[in-house]
Amino acid sequence: MSTSFELDARLLGAAARLGRLGDSHVLLMHDAALPWFLVVPETEIIELCDLPAATHARLFERVHGVGRFVRSYFSADKLNVAAIGNIVPQLHVHVIGRYRDDPYWPGPVWGHSSDERRDAPTIATIRDALAAALPGFEIATDG
Amino acid sequence: MSTSFELDARLLGAAARLGRLGDSHVLLMHDAALPWFLVVPETEIIELCDLPAATHARLFERVHGVGRFVRSYFSADKLNVAAIGNIVPQLHVHVIGRYRDDPYWPGPVWGHSSDERRDAPTIATIRDALAAALPGFEIATDG
Repeated sequence: MSTSFELDARLLGAAARLGRLGDSHVLLMHDAALPWFLVVPETEIIELCDLPAATHARLFERVHGVGRFVRSYFSADKLNVAAIGNIVPQLHVHVIGRYRDDPYWPGPVWGHSSDERRDAPTIATIRDALAAALPGFEIATDG
Repeated sequence: MSTSFELDARLLGAAARLGRLGDSHVLLMHDAALPWFLVVPETEIIELCDLPAATHARLFERVHGVGRFVRSYFSADKLNVAAIGNIVPQLHVHVIGRYRDDPYWPGPVWGHSSDERRDAPTIATIRDALAAALPGFEIATDG
């Protein structure tokens, strides 16, 4: 866990920090149209294929923990999991719950955004439910 | 390796089978605008988070083998790796090489398509290069 790691300002602009799981940060996109999370490992490596195997396995344990939470808590029909990084190269994995009747289905969500925003109590409720579902989850103290 | 596994007809309609790596099939999308591969493990499981850990690790070894090939052979600037499956639920991982000057950059490629197609000799050349790069790759005999 590097003390010099800083989350990219563009990720912090688009999403709320919920907390961390080990050396990964978990963020929730502000766009409230869908349950759309980001898992950001503390690494300078940009491509998944360059991660050491143990780091990769740990990252995906976290990604899939978030994914199972999205499926159960938000009753999602399908999970979309992706590492794209064309705009923000800092390695981050999208974990998105999709619905057969969501506004973008069956297309991808990237490139779309709604003006819908969650209020702070709703974000706190989601954060606490995530913390209860994921052993070892540490809630972010700086919001 | 199940003998009853069949690749989804929609994947076979959109992409050429290049071959297999262990229990995963490797396909190349017909759309020639970008180097866009699919890795399809022989499983009935739909979500990555439901794969047993060893199966998951094996799948991503293959995904990342293809990713490193895409980066070196096609000199891609960025890799996009995703499991979406909203249209075709059969588990398949997209591995796409992206360029800062490609027609969709920095947006995602899903939802876009060009009329550009590769001819059979070009596909065979790519397939043979992939086979040379990836130990254990078995070329598809049925085209």
